Amino acid sequence: MSMDKLIQKIAALQNPTVAGLDPKLSYIPAHIRAQSYEKYGKTLEGAADALLTFNRGLIDALWDVTPAVKPQAAYYELYGWPGVRALAETIAYAKSRGMYVITDGKRNDIGATMEAYAAAHLGVTDVEGETLEAFGADALTVNGYLGTDGIAPLVQVCAARDKGIFVLAKTSNPSSGELQDQALASGETVYRAMGQRCEEWGRALPGQYGYSGVGAVVGATYPAQLAELRRALPHTFFLVPGYGAQGGGAEDVAPAFDENGLGAVVNSSRGILCAWQKENCPGEEYAQAARREAIRMRDEITARIGKIVLPD
Amino acid sequence: MSMDKLIQKIAALQNPTVAGLDPKLSYIPAHIRAQSYEKYGKTLEGAADALLTFNRGLIDALWDVTPAVKPQAAYYELYGWPGVRALAETIAYAKSRGMYVITDGKRNDIGATMEAYAAAHLGVTDVEGETLEAFGADALTVNGYLGTDGIAPLVQVCAARDKGIFVLAKTSNPSSGELQDQALASGETVYRAMGQRCEEWGRALPGQYGYSGVGAVVGATYPAQLAELRRALPHTFFLVPGYGAQGGGAEDVAPAFDENGLGAVVNSSRGILCAWQKENCPGEEYAQAARREAIRMRDEITARIGKIVLPD
Repeated sequence: MSMDKLIQKIAALQNPTVAGLDPKLSYIPAHIRAQSYEKYGKTLEGAADALLTFNRGLIDALWDVTPAVKPQAAYYELYGWPGVRALAETIAYAKSRGMYVITDGKRNDIGATMEAYAAAHLGVTDVEGETLEAFGADALTVNGYLGTDGIAPLVQVCAARDKGIFVLAKTSNPSSGELQDQALASGETVYRAMGQRCEEWGRALPGQYGYSGVGAVVGATYPAQLAELRRALPHTFFLVPGYGAQGGGAEDVAPAFDENGLGAVVNSSRGILCAWQKENCPGEEYAQAARREAIRMRDEITARIGKIVLPD
Repeated sequence: MSMDKLIQKIAALQNPTVAGLDPKLSYIPAHIRAQSYEKYGKTLEGAADALLTFNRGLIDALWDVTPAVKPQAAYYELYGWPGVRALAETIAYAKSRGMYVITDGKRNDIGATMEAYAAAHLGVTDVEGETLEAFGADALTVNGYLGTDGIAPLVQVCAARDKGIFVLAKTSNPSSGELQDQALASGETVYRAMGQRCEEWGRALPGQYGYSGVGAVVGATYPAQLAELRRALPHTFFLVPGYGAQGGGAEDVAPAFDENGLGAVVNSSRGILCAWQKENCPGEEYAQAARREAIRMRDEITARIGKIVLPD
């Protein structure tokens, strides 16, 4: 099922990374913003147009280096419905270039409401017999606080349409331990228990490389927990945030990988989006700078984990 | 701070309930859908137009009975960006009729990303010095799995703009106990610990009636836990789902209230939206049927809890 597509792309490009498309206006070169404001004014539409143009340039520069993009829904909702339209158009454009798309929405709800989220982001929407795609990502990040009622509707859509989910287990932020590190009466931590649930939920979505369609989010900023969960959750693919701007390096993410160099996809957002600013290069070269940083990140991580091999 | 506005509206209307605007196409009378499809076809735009027309009729019928509406984001995302535009327009319309609006998005993230969600749903969006409102709700439901890093950005926006949040504590669904009922090493359950965090986070947002701007979601389907949390969390206002279609009744929600009849707002979605179908009345009368059900629900709950009094 679904993680297979991601795994195949990772192996084909020999690159276990994902570019986080979290475009703040301040990351976007002035010439792109000026063009958008000329068309639409300094409005939500104008900002959304700038986001989309910026993203398209990034995707054009990254598609043959980086297997996946991960747009973060919050940065699109910030610009209202025009921003959300830019999200849908970003997803469509990345897919048209053959990239795997993970919508980072951390959605969570139950029953019919979770069915609606699942259909919206991974499935199809029925309008009186017409079958339409609302957002059409390949995978979605989700929050498992509500238990199986919140995950089962996603698993159904994943099974029907070869999609995947990543459930928050151990997040990369400083306060993630407030709840996630607490020990349950069983002795297990909350993040470990959530990881175990991913293994269980994933049984309905087995993959040909050993990883199910139910992945987990585990932060690069906690390498010991990353190593612990890699050992404990052999069928759960990891989405690893926290590399780069949040402080994680190649050493920190290495424990997320198995002996084939599989098991995880490492995200970088600001490092790639803001490479042109960090390099102090002209805004017109933002996409080339992003590509250079994506290649640098790929090489740094693959130097550490070695060749990525698809098991038989 | 912000819960005060909700509390004042509840007292003014003597009605501690909120109408959940979770519009599925199958809840919408045929004449409304036909008009929208004539204009926009059987498309996402057509469905979104039907949602908005349906919601406006409900708001016109409910605004002087029910203090608040709670649109559930999933049902709008299901129709892509046109659906999300209908969400924004529903919020604006409800506010124009003086209703308090709780966006049910269960959003969660950290740092700059949570700042973006907070600005999008409760705050303002800056586009090169232009200050715009993306969605403009009065309150937002959120998920606290990521800890304080995910809540602090919301608290800042709530303080600056007199808004509120409701953090998931004990949800109404059957599997909510998988994580939420587990005992931590401290002996406390996860839902109780999350409730305690609401009390702590709320200290930055004190209210004039004793309730802070940080509320909690506690389901009507678990009356014992509702009573336990009411006693344990004296400054935390509750948003109570699970009344009606999910099985909770007036007896079940009564423990959510304090001696002044305050402390909670009870949600009904399907009961109100589908009243016309349950009553077997013509689709043209869906709004009047919704109003009848909203009044019935108000009377059922207030008969149980008595007059709602604003403490000095």
